[in-house]
Amino acid sequence: MSETTGLIDALSRLQADLALLVGAEAVERYRADATRRPGPEPVAVARPRTTADLAALLAFCTARRQLVAVQGGLTGLAGGARPQAGELPISLERMRSLSEPDLLSMSVEAGAGVTLEALQARAAAAGLMFGVDIGARGTATIGGMIATNAGGIRVLRHGMFRAQVLGLEAVLSDGRVLTSMRGLQKDNSGYDLKQLMIGSEGTLGIVTRARLRLLPKPRHERNALCAVGSVDAALQLMRRLREHLGSDLSACEAIWPDVYAGVVALRGGSAPLATGHALYLLVESQSFRHEEDDLFETALGEAYEAGLCQDVVLSQSGRDFTALWEIRDGCTDYTASLGGMTGHDVSLPPDAMANFLDEAGAIVRRIDPAARICVFGHLGDGNLHYVVKSQHMPLLSPEIFACAAGLGGAVTAEHGVGSDKRAHLPLVRSPVELAVMRSIKHGLDPYGILNRGRILPEPSP
Amino acid sequence: MSETTGLIDALSRLQADLALLVGAEAVERYRADATRRPGPEPVAVARPRTTADLAALLAFCTARRQLVAVQGGLTGLAGGARPQAGELPISLERMRSLSEPDLLSMSVEAGAGVTLEALQARAAAAGLMFGVDIGARGTATIGGMIATNAGGIRVLRHGMFRAQVLGLEAVLSDGRVLTSMRGLQKDNSGYDLKQLMIGSEGTLGIVTRARLRLLPKPRHERNALCAVGSVDAALQLMRRLREHLGSDLSACEAIWPDVYAGVVALRGGSAPLATGHALYLLVESQSFRHEEDDLFETALGEAYEAGLCQDVVLSQSGRDFTALWEIRDGCTDYTASLGGMTGHDVSLPPDAMANFLDEAGAIVRRIDPAARICVFGHLGDGNLHYVVKSQHMPLLSPEIFACAAGLGGAVTAEHGVGSDKRAHLPLVRSPVELAVMRSIKHGLDPYGILNRGRILPEPSP
Repeated sequence: MSETTGLIDALSRLQADLALLVGAEAVERYRADATRRPGPEPVAVARPRTTADLAALLAFCTARRQLVAVQGGLTGLAGGARPQAGELPISLERMRSLSEPDLLSMSVEAGAGVTLEALQARAAAAGLMFGVDIGARGTATIGGMIATNAGGIRVLRHGMFRAQVLGLEAVLSDGRVLTSMRGLQKDNSGYDLKQLMIGSEGTLGIVTRARLRLLPKPRHERNALCAVGSVDAALQLMRRLREHLGSDLSACEAIWPDVYAGVVALRGGSAPLATGHALYLLVESQSFRHEEDDLFETALGEAYEAGLCQDVVLSQSGRDFTALWEIRDGCTDYTASLGGMTGHDVSLPPDAMANFLDEAGAIVRRIDPAARICVFGHLGDGNLHYVVKSQHMPLLSPEIFACAAGLGGAVTAEHGVGSDKRAHLPLVRSPVELAVMRSIKHGLDPYGILNRGRILPEPSP
Repeated sequence: MSETTGLIDALSRLQADLALLVGAEAVERYRADATRRPGPEPVAVARPRTTADLAALLAFCTARRQLVAVQGGLTGLAGGARPQAGELPISLERMRSLSEPDLLSMSVEAGAGVTLEALQARAAAAGLMFGVDIGARGTATIGGMIATNAGGIRVLRHGMFRAQVLGLEAVLSDGRVLTSMRGLQKDNSGYDLKQLMIGSEGTLGIVTRARLRLLPKPRHERNALCAVGSVDAALQLMRRLREHLGSDLSACEAIWPDVYAGVVALRGGSAPLATGHALYLLVESQSFRHEEDDLFETALGEAYEAGLCQDVVLSQSGRDFTALWEIRDGCTDYTASLGGMTGHDVSLPPDAMANFLDEAGAIVRRIDPAARICVFGHLGDGNLHYVVKSQHMPLLSPEIFACAAGLGGAVTAEHGVGSDKRAHLPLVRSPVELAVMRSIKHGLDPYGILNRGRILPEPSP
């Protein structure tokens, strides 16, 4: 009996509903994340239905030292869920329970396999909203978004996914169930273990469900596209808008001119602003005012008068509002349409963003004058998606990450480390930080069966 | 040479600026926290000036297995900083550096010994604000507030202290320095270790400095005191106000009638609302509107018309605003003035608050009909300060905590576990949660020298 057959047989005998897939079925969907770089063919995929099923499976895996790859919606961009040799993929896709929102505690309970879109729809039906939004909303799942501490377009106002989690449940590597689902707004009863799980990319435990914070639905949403002269002008504009609007300023997204022109051409529609400006800024206000929402307009008008932007188009209808957001959402489609692009999800202090663009641009031109650079991202959070197409990426990427790190930035702002960026982690984390991470990993997963080789620069012992 | 003299001699020989206090000097100020229940007399108090001084001291303590008690402003209410037998108190009071606010990243760097008041003043001078406020602002320090994940009166809008920390530095038990000071808005480069330190009450490391988030200063602040008929009516009122005001609703504090009457009498002034109502609710709005701030007034007017409150007084001036807050701030002074009161900082799901008050009241009356109960707290966060005066507290407190836990609540919302509540932790944390906490503690402090016996129910090994 081969090792493969042995594993499948043993899994079949487990007292757990795993909806096991084998052969071609297992290979087709579960071999790659959104980086589209498939790992080795998995021999089977386990899809536990309940927390108890997953607990039985992980107890089995630890006893057998069977490595596992944890999978949510497979929209990750860092190879965190991409199976590696010898790994059993575990997909949480069948854990789709979703409670009715609790209007008094303003919260909802969701299974790991619930999509962001389903959650958003459930919140909206109750007259509420959820604080995180990302382009992959139709496919990305709650479990994966917790594991990667997802960010997106409204971090400026509502924070990362971390800020939305009131409680969670996770299964540890040995099958013990860590349930922290009280979901209280305030609870200092010992270490906040959910904080450790959030953003640990499946290396410390597998999230099965969570209680999530909902927010009052704003009465008015309005956005505008501004043409600005530079990154520093964009930061000044943002600062001015925050002075006027406070936390009503809910998004501040930047699109560089090549990408703007590309998206407009790809969509085939008319451009809301002329192409050729130095930088485009999409800003949004979410407010609770009763009266017509003129504070946003006034603030933008003053900024224009003060020379902080060269042109501005303000949404006048729901249709305008959606059309402007579609340009921002289209950035990923556009760069994907170019083929073979490699993203760098860097984070920077605000005063280092312009320097980064200069220095990284010089690096790219030096190594490959024929390279193509596309830039867009969450300027309000210091998070740029620096996307490059070149035959020399293995030379380029490390230098781009080193450049960001050298300017006080990070090698990943919101996509996570996964398998693909672990070599760069020492650029931004000290030996002491890495040692503490390893100590925590070892304490919770002593045999290193969970997502081995993700995050930490060397494989766990 | 006695062990005491040996310790003092050895500390004096360390190459570190510790501003050592011995004898009466050490005893006087450093023996108790705000619970005013002094621990045994410490033989010395070490007050390191820099991170390097503290690192040298902790390396020495680990080598010698010398237990330490970590001390900030000594405003804690759970015995976390109260020295225990054989412990060397380490006070961070000399680490008082405070940077100028960075207006672009909206952040400031503060040493552990900086008071909240000093931080608030520095933010205000730059036209910004800090998100956390508590009554003990003049004495409580940044290090202690991070270690205890302090809450306070504006959690509803701005979150706990955790939400304000962009980066921090801590010294581990063996003297290694864990520096995570990049302070980026978004950074998913590995486990977020600062989250583990925040709220760990000095048991995992000693915080030396932090980069803290600042916020735009609201243009208008306004508050109102409402008389409501019950807790459930108060929750309905809050829900109505959030629908109108969204996140502009920045505080929702409750005062029960006995406490209200007591504060009014203690202050000797006229009462803004008549005594004798069932419950008093202090609500506040922070807004960025240009126009006169009438949305708050409109929302309260509609709530009054709808019968959600029986009476309401709205602040019409800065003086009114301050006077209403002084009533809320006076609750602690009032209960302290009664002498011998014991607080229970419980957290509850919103729909369990009324039940808790009924059940806990019945428990108190059953065990001690002569007991006195004072209640006030952060109703918007489900956090009640349930303060009792009785000769039978050792019988009463465990039952009160068990009652909160049984209703899905927590035994501490914002004060922390410290030494005084560790016995109650198993009421709200499962054996798996406690085992994971112990594993983390053991990994970071293998000899258990840091704040031993705080948080975890049994002493570390």
